[in-house]
Amino acid sequence: MTEDRFIRDLKIRTEKADRAVLSYLPKPERFNKTTVDAMLYSVGNGGKRLRPLLMIEFFKLNRNDEDLIYPFAAALEYIHSYSLIHDDLPCMDNSDLRRGKPSTHKQFGEWQALLAGDGLLNYAIETILNHTNYSKIPVETALICLKELLIASGINGMVGGQNLDLESEGKSLNIDELTLLQSKKTGAIIKAAGRIGVIASGGGGKTLRLADEYCENLGRMFQMTDDILDVCGNERLLGKPTNGDCSHNKSTFVSELGLEKAKKITGELAEKAIKAAKMLQNDFLGDLANFLLTRNK
Amino acid sequence: MTEDRFIRDLKIRTEKADRAVLSYLPKPERFNKTTVDAMLYSVGNGGKRLRPLLMIEFFKLNRNDEDLIYPFAAALEYIHSYSLIHDDLPCMDNSDLRRGKPSTHKQFGEWQALLAGDGLLNYAIETILNHTNYSKIPVETALICLKELLIASGINGMVGGQNLDLESEGKSLNIDELTLLQSKKTGAIIKAAGRIGVIASGGGGKTLRLADEYCENLGRMFQMTDDILDVCGNERLLGKPTNGDCSHNKSTFVSELGLEKAKKITGELAEKAIKAAKMLQNDFLGDLANFLLTRNK
Repeated sequence: MTEDRFIRDLKIRTEKADRAVLSYLPKPERFNKTTVDAMLYSVGNGGKRLRPLLMIEFFKLNRNDEDLIYPFAAALEYIHSYSLIHDDLPCMDNSDLRRGKPSTHKQFGEWQALLAGDGLLNYAIETILNHTNYSKIPVETALICLKELLIASGINGMVGGQNLDLESEGKSLNIDELTLLQSKKTGAIIKAAGRIGVIASGGGGKTLRLADEYCENLGRMFQMTDDILDVCGNERLLGKPTNGDCSHNKSTFVSELGLEKAKKITGELAEKAIKAAKMLQNDFLGDLANFLLTRNK
Repeated sequence: MTEDRFIRDLKIRTEKADRAVLSYLPKPERFNKTTVDAMLYSVGNGGKRLRPLLMIEFFKLNRNDEDLIYPFAAALEYIHSYSLIHDDLPCMDNSDLRRGKPSTHKQFGEWQALLAGDGLLNYAIETILNHTNYSKIPVETALICLKELLIASGINGMVGGQNLDLESEGKSLNIDELTLLQSKKTGAIIKAAGRIGVIASGGGGKTLRLADEYCENLGRMFQMTDDILDVCGNERLLGKPTNGDCSHNKSTFVSELGLEKAKKITGELAEKAIKAAKMLQNDFLGDLANFLLTRNK
């Protein structure tokens, strides 16, 4: 695929994922207006829509009716958004900026952000329950997908990873510990995107193993690239201050490996993801891994 | 039923509900230990277990195999616990004490409490998905119950009510506004306890309407009694400071109606609940309404 063609395809897919994510959002009512407004602000605040995009792409490996997976794709993004809102709060990472705009608690206040996060996690599951088309996705399959999602977002996935991350501030972590942290905090949700896409489409076996292989490597690469951009990135492009990890006294792949070695490993992880994409005979996923390797924001 | 007999029955039922709630709790692993410990502290910190007890009782109207409803009963209590953890945080009600012990953030720290709440909401749904016996409760019925739970706990229920409550600080609310606030913040979950119990047992129709009638009146009475105890109660028995609503400049049923009128209305609400219990031919539920009317903690 030429680069121009890929950029155009990425744009089309991102817009589709974005529309899916926005389509299920609730309308505020008088009694919940502040909380719902804060939810809409956070989810509407752009982002790459990488997770829903991946889920839709993996669903399409097996089926054409991609709108069937939209409720799950939206739910995954709502859970991602809730985690960012809570992570940005003063008692966690205390971040004033998110994607170049005030973080949710800076815009709305602290209790408003806390409730918006709670509301989004709850609403994510409601979205799946209210909008899954059980005549096209068997109810047993939908339940397996819901379970995959909640394992990835809970104490054995994202919440557990955030616990490990906050406990590790001021401590030096080795590469194994950093890899565990990342696999829980950000990796689990990215992996769930691929798995739910495949499982909901009726796929499994080799396709599921390749989805795992692709998403695990892409997730690790994505996190390492984040660490690299935190050192070398442009604050304006990133929409957030750089050197945040350093000022929080956090171990990162860059602090532990050095910049050159970290860059080398991200390249190797991208290669592994690209190889999995080839075996899935999906050019777009291969190009996406390459694109995310060279991102500057 | 004699009072002694009721107290004994209540104790047996409370212990059963308590065992059900504790039986599904996770074991901490190294990477999530602090969060899971904070979850266990919060859920293990006693309480009346009123919500799971009600759900089990309504399930038993129709079926004998009450252990089938335990995963839902536990999930409801986890959601109640998460709401208490987050409500106690400094940016919300800023409460140092809960049931006579340090609140979760006082015991573990703020981010630890925030994550424990997030973890509990997520884990509540995992508990239902992992432990429901689908050979005895049809999967379609389980999904309806899950939906009832999430509507009650989300932006159109508990989260919405908490939003209204926090927005109302320093404002004077009339009785209609207070009733709306209470029906969302605490009423929705109590009503869900009854509804899920009935629906999961295969019941509906008149039984469901009477469950709504009982739980709505019991929930309103329970909240009004809370307001009364906040003015007249004993701090030692309650395990928390009294006059909290007044010092937070909050409208309550007592501040708006006066103590005597509030007491009169709680009596009327109890009567309505007792009448619904009679029509359900359940003495225990009637005695429970009477018992909660005269509680001092």
